[in-house]
Amino acid sequence: MKLIRDPIHGYIEVPDKIVPIISHPFFQRLRHIKQTALAYMVYPGMNHSRFEHSLGAMHLSLEFLKYVKGNSNLDLDQDTIGLIGVTALLHDIGHMPFSHTFENALSVAREVYGLDVLDKGKKTHVYLGIKIIEEVLGSLIEGRLRSSEDPVKFIINVLSENPKNSSERLAALVISNFIDADRSDYLLRDSYYAGVEYGQFDIERLKRFLYFNDGKLAVMDKALPVVEQFLLARMYMFKNVYFHSVVGLYNAILSHSIAHLLIRGEIRLPEEVTDLLNFDDNLIISKLSSVRQELRNAILYRQGFKRIKIEPNEQCLKDLEEMRDEINSDMRSSNGLFLYHEFNDIPYQEEREEAVYILTPHGVDKLKRISTLIGSLSEVKRVVFGYHPSAETLGRKYLEILNSCNKN
Amino acid sequence: MKLIRDPIHGYIEVPDKIVPIISHPFFQRLRHIKQTALAYMVYPGMNHSRFEHSLGAMHLSLEFLKYVKGNSNLDLDQDTIGLIGVTALLHDIGHMPFSHTFENALSVAREVYGLDVLDKGKKTHVYLGIKIIEEVLGSLIEGRLRSSEDPVKFIINVLSENPKNSSERLAALVISNFIDADRSDYLLRDSYYAGVEYGQFDIERLKRFLYFNDGKLAVMDKALPVVEQFLLARMYMFKNVYFHSVVGLYNAILSHSIAHLLIRGEIRLPEEVTDLLNFDDNLIISKLSSVRQELRNAILYRQGFKRIKIEPNEQCLKDLEEMRDEINSDMRSSNGLFLYHEFNDIPYQEEREEAVYILTPHGVDKLKRISTLIGSLSEVKRVVFGYHPSAETLGRKYLEILNSCNKN
Amino acid sequence: MKLIRDPIHGYIEVPDKIVPIISHPFFQRLRHIKQTALAYMVYPGMNHSRFEHSLGAMHLSLEFLKYVKGNSNLDLDQDTIGLIGVTALLHDIGHMPFSHTFENALSVAREVYGLDVLDKGKKTHVYLGIKIIEEVLGSLIEGRLRSSEDPVKFIINVLSENPKNSSERLAALVISNFIDADRSDYLLRDSYYAGVEYGQFDIERLKRFLYFNDGKLAVMDKALPVVEQFLLARMYMFKNVYFHSVVGLYNAILSHSIAHLLIRGEIRLPEEVTDLLNFDDNLIISKLSSVRQELRNAILYRQGFKRIKIEPNEQCLKDLEEMRDEINSDMRSSNGLFLYHEFNDIPYQEEREEAVYILTPHGVDKLKRISTLIGSLSEVKRVVFGYHPSAETLGRKYLEILNSCNKN
Amino acid sequence: MKLIRDPIHGYIEVPDKIVPIISHPFFQRLRHIKQTALAYMVYPGMNHSRFEHSLGAMHLSLEFLKYVKGNSNLDLDQDTIGLIGVTALLHDIGHMPFSHTFENALSVAREVYGLDVLDKGKKTHVYLGIKIIEEVLGSLIEGRLRSSEDPVKFIINVLSENPKNSSERLAALVISNFIDADRSDYLLRDSYYAGVEYGQFDIERLKRFLYFNDGKLAVMDKALPVVEQFLLARMYMFKNVYFHSVVGLYNAILSHSIAHLLIRGEIRLPEEVTDLLNFDDNLIISKLSSVRQELRNAILYRQGFKRIKIEPNEQCLKDLEEMRDEINSDMRSSNGLFLYHEFNDIPYQEEREEAVYILTPHGVDKLKRISTLIGSLSEVKRVVFGYHPSAETLGRKYLEILNSCNKN
Repeated sequence: MKLIRDPIHGYIEVPDKIVPIISHPFFQRLRHIKQTALAYMVYPGMNHSRFEHSLGAMHLSLEFLKYVKGNSNLDLDQDTIGLIGVTALLHDIGHMPFSHTFENALSVAREVYGLDVLDKGKKTHVYLGIKIIEEVLGSLIEGRLRSSEDPVKFIINVLSENPKNSSERLAALVISNFIDADRSDYLLRDSYYAGVEYGQFDIERLKRFLYFNDGKLAVMDKALPVVEQFLLARMYMFKNVYFHSVVGLYNAILSHSIAHLLIRGEIRLPEEVTDLLNFDDNLIISKLSSVRQELRNAILYRQGFKRIKIEPNEQCLKDLEEMRDEINSDMRSSNGLFLYHEFNDIPYQEEREEAVYILTPHGVDKLKRISTLIGSLSEVKRVVFGYHPSAETLGRKYLEILNSCNKN
Repeated sequence: MKLIRDPIHGYIEVPDKIVPIISHPFFQRLRHIKQTALAYMVYPGMNHSRFEHSLGAMHLSLEFLKYVKGNSNLDLDQDTIGLIGVTALLHDIGHMPFSHTFENALSVAREVYGLDVLDKGKKTHVYLGIKIIEEVLGSLIEGRLRSSEDPVKFIINVLSENPKNSSERLAALVISNFIDADRSDYLLRDSYYAGVEYGQFDIERLKRFLYFNDGKLAVMDKALPVVEQFLLARMYMFKNVYFHSVVGLYNAILSHSIAHLLIRGEIRLPEEVTDLLNFDDNLIISKLSSVRQELRNAILYRQGFKRIKIEPNEQCLKDLEEMRDEINSDMRSSNGLFLYHEFNDIPYQEEREEAVYILTPHGVDKLKRISTLIGSLSEVKRVVFGYHPSAETLGRKYLEILNSCNKN
Repeated sequence: MKLIRDPIHGYIEVPDKIVPIISHPFFQRLRHIKQTALAYMVYPGMNHSRFEHSLGAMHLSLEFLKYVKGNSNLDLDQDTIGLIGVTALLHDIGHMPFSHTFENALSVAREVYGLDVLDKGKKTHVYLGIKIIEEVLGSLIEGRLRSSEDPVKFIINVLSENPKNSSERLAALVISNFIDADRSDYLLRDSYYAGVEYGQFDIERLKRFLYFNDGKLAVMDKALPVVEQFLLARMYMFKNVYFHSVVGLYNAILSHSIAHLLIRGEIRLPEEVTDLLNFDDNLIISKLSSVRQELRNAILYRQGFKRIKIEPNEQCLKDLEEMRDEINSDMRSSNGLFLYHEFNDIPYQEEREEAVYILTPHGVDKLKRISTLIGSLSEVKRVVFGYHPSAETLGRKYLEILNSCNKN
Repeated sequence: MKLIRDPIHGYIEVPDKIVPIISHPFFQRLRHIKQTALAYMVYPGMNHSRFEHSLGAMHLSLEFLKYVKGNSNLDLDQDTIGLIGVTALLHDIGHMPFSHTFENALSVAREVYGLDVLDKGKKTHVYLGIKIIEEVLGSLIEGRLRSSEDPVKFIINVLSENPKNSSERLAALVISNFIDADRSDYLLRDSYYAGVEYGQFDIERLKRFLYFNDGKLAVMDKALPVVEQFLLARMYMFKNVYFHSVVGLYNAILSHSIAHLLIRGEIRLPEEVTDLLNFDDNLIISKLSSVRQELRNAILYRQGFKRIKIEPNEQCLKDLEEMRDEINSDMRSSNGLFLYHEFNDIPYQEEREEAVYILTPHGVDKLKRISTLIGSLSEVKRVVFGYHPSAETLGRKYLEILNSCNKN
């Protein structure tokens, strides 16, 4: 057992057989990918990495399983539990520099600049992660994890959200769900490093009231308030941290910078999986000297850009949708000195298969049928425009368009 | 007033006139210098930067002054208080990549590899900081800070520990002392990001019992236990975090790597102060491709090195001192595959001018005359050897020498 | 200045002129009245008193005023600020033993047992508090607090929610409002002692974004999420702590016990204000020997009662309302071995004058027009039945009636 | 499994078979005995009870055992572990009103007032606890706890510090030692309710590095700093909280009041163990009306007494020792309007059998041989005199004697 000190969970106890996976360069690489990209522009403490989040996700998935097993009288052997822990550990292994910002940069490259580039949206890191697991970590995993099943196949089935049997399904629900070990860790962790209360929720209660039956992971109704608290915590973290307009502005600037680097061939998406090893935040930063100075100075020294933020109403969103070609064209022609960034997140959606279930005395029910509060949560949409003073004409053009558009 | 969220102090309230200094690229640059270099190798949460520490030091110095002024009936105007705050804000402005590790690298370059390089020991960052203040920030400061005195001269006198009058002396004592705003901030902050208790102390009590009279900053005896707690907290942070043998090993590897980069001309110490702007952690990381692979892999992926740690006894230290030429020669000939790193820190030294004073009903007295506990603190000395398997012969040679040497 | 250590706010700094009020026996008396009555039956840490809550309310009201004054450019002198602080300090001075439980006991005495007793509902403690201020503390306050106005009149106008001028109105809004210093303190404090997260909210942000203008206290829209977080925190504290069914059961048992003591003349409501001095929790506990053993053992040793809890639907509430006479009669005939307790709280009600206002760029607006989330909060109603095994027949009678009635 | 929310440990998970012991009136009684008597006079948050501390001690002893068992490869069955948990749960079951203050009152009654009363010093509560276990809880324990040994005998052997075999010895070391579950809980808990940092230490690390072998409980040397931190934390809690001179003053006043009640027969030490059931803080408070008003008002309303505190030097202590008869006579003649209270505690004593052992690579060693810091800790002695203004002559007499005596 190796102990790793973690500000969120105290000690993370890593079983000996898992240590070599953590020591592998491809896992160590996650130290160099910031969890929340440029959020540190607003919250200076947010320099934390995917490395620690991945350890935390493993830790919480093991905690969840301990109680799920006890509460549900599951026949779940230690090997499978360990395997689920490793799956959680590796759920972000495929992230590119600055995590989701790189994924956004790919879509900017494609949609704004017309570059023909791989773009699997927010699932690109899953796609690359599976490649790493198959081509690099596979034999290490097989050598290390005893299991009645093929451990690599198990991990891939779970991460690609394609579970084949009950334990893979349990793994998928524990790791990737509306309420899961991944989200639990990042809410608590991001909150801690930002120094805000928003993301805090009662993890001690939540984990003790999980129940698995008939392919469904449910929260027992005694912990219903924690379920609400969790979904609200997540919504507030989105509104106040992840979707902060200044964070959005800088991530847009970074996205365009990355797109420019791709276009000029200064960086390229790794074709060989081994090339992913040094595909991290440092690489992008070191290439910024090839990016136009206005963008570079913005990213490195928080210089020079202005922003217009709105909470658009429905009509406004439609208008913006229709103007999309024009906006893209303005971004392209200004070469990123004028920028547009859209945020959207759905706090909770009953219709998806991963709906949250509540275990009541009358059986398992869907969350919205029980909690009126959750029913009132709606999609979060936000829009930020940014511009460098040298592109002020564009800035002013959109300012006028948007003035009537702001929700408040 | 600008509010910056800080996990340690809640909100840091930045007066409007100070905002442009924080927005200056030379201050923003501190975002890219880690506060504790490679300590994140052991404590994965320690990714925090000099940027936030500098804000925290400013904040605490203003808090200290509020109470010092009230307790001592000081005639201290708001301009001078603001000026002291800015001095605290800028106390680390001259740090080079990876802070003290770069300073260590300079001494490795000189002593091990014979390079003729600037080396002002642990004061190099002060030397460079003063250059930045004089040559870059001076006019901004003068334009912003009203003051009866020359604000730039004030700041420089204080940071160079050469105070010329009572308020400069007060500033020096509040910012740079055995117990001061700088150390208070880093103990609390480093502790928070490491996730340990060691560095915690009762800052709320400490700050309320400060007293300034006759050129001495004293702690009122009601807060004596907090003074002890503070010095113990600092000692424990050194023993368990800053001087952790694994942290030492990786900082030694990084120091040799930096020395190699200097020797090969891949990087050089900025001659013009403006060249300091991009002299940050990222620069070193981006140059690691020029460093031999064993060192690079160690720094980036925590791969490959072994360590021998000892708490040397007196005789042992003498022996090591005498072997110093041999050790240096072995490091040089192995090109950094064999490494030696020494830690030492003196928790508290009565003899220095900055001794801690305690205000008792009978007047001001020195700490050691009042606290027996503090008298028992002694210098912390630690020694780490590291070697790559390919330099195992050297490793074994020293293992034998040292086996008899370990204190425990 | 006197410093009082407080787990919630660090140090509470008490100005010298206020110290004698805190030292007065009538204020010290609050040490012997538990803040949350028998909530410690479920949350064993909740033994805290009205004494510390009152200090905390004073502290927060002074913090609020500091920022309100700065943000709104208010011309508010130190004397008035001090006076508002004292008003907050004294807002609970009139509480009877076990605070609101005694107020509940009075209504039980009247409605169930037909006793003709003073009953001003949840305002009884305000009524008694004003008597204490007028008859006992008045001269002390007048001697201590310089003020352009009559300080005692000021305090009474504010506490009786009858403010006569702008500063009294400000005081009323800061102390007694949907979002105020009183509630802020008790949410944070009760949460801390219960050891739960529910009541936590971002007080550091809230207090910095308060604004007073035109007789309205508003929160600036930058802190809108904290306003939501506050109202949700309060709702969760009600649902999970204050209205916990076991807490309700024991407070019902205590209410009936107090009613019995009143009926038998073992205790009586103080006629002279000086008799209030020892009218505290200890008095009731010492009189429990006169109460029937089943109730006494329940209160002291958590023995013997069973409970039926429901979240009633609308129809059910109507039915219960209609059965009210029967229920009262059953309680009376069983002499408290069968009990019924109703909880209800309205998390937020726009229609009341104390509505929360939000300051937007377009002026001041009401909360519900801006926050959809808050619109979804509805009245919390809960019902608990309890019975001693010897009254099981009654228990079973109601169990049957209620079985169809539970909301979930 | 029953979950009890605890501010210190999150949730305390109580195994079903232990629930009836916690539900027993004799355990519930601990709710009415304050953990730290009148410490709330200085730290208003310290209203917590022996009830929650006992739960915490059980919880930590089970945590300790989990790691001791794993680290030492102990063959320790679940039944024995449960039994040790119950022993920890019951270690304070025999405490009298206001815990140690009542024990102090017995010695005051005997030494100052010449009353012939049971007085087993700080072990009185152990003596009474064993009686309760034998006469009241025995059959419940036997019915509940399966064990290869006689569970009641096991508990009594451990609590009376008379362990007969290896598992009883382990239990004694885990529960009652220089570093143990009892002290760990009260340091963390008292610190939390006082709102101070002093008692905090790294419990997460400590518990993970415990080792049991050859009848000795050792801490592994990797956690040596936590051992130092623990002993320092305890010392600071004594100096700043438990031995605070105001706390001492009020506990002296309470001790004399209790002595008076014993003398007048208003209360008496329970002869039958069942009489202990309502022998709690409430009983004493309800009897205060029989105590002279000056003492009563001091206890209830913090009124009227002055204090002289000294940190006596050696000579002074000798002088006071020689004056003891005179001091006692003055206390007796003033009937408690003049009071003297002595504090003393030994932070760590190597000579005692319970010395702390450290496990080094070379075997088990005593703490002082390894930690120089601990060697510098010395006995804490403090003396408080208190007097009511009406006994000012006595106060002045001693003030003069003591003026030359104060250490500082």
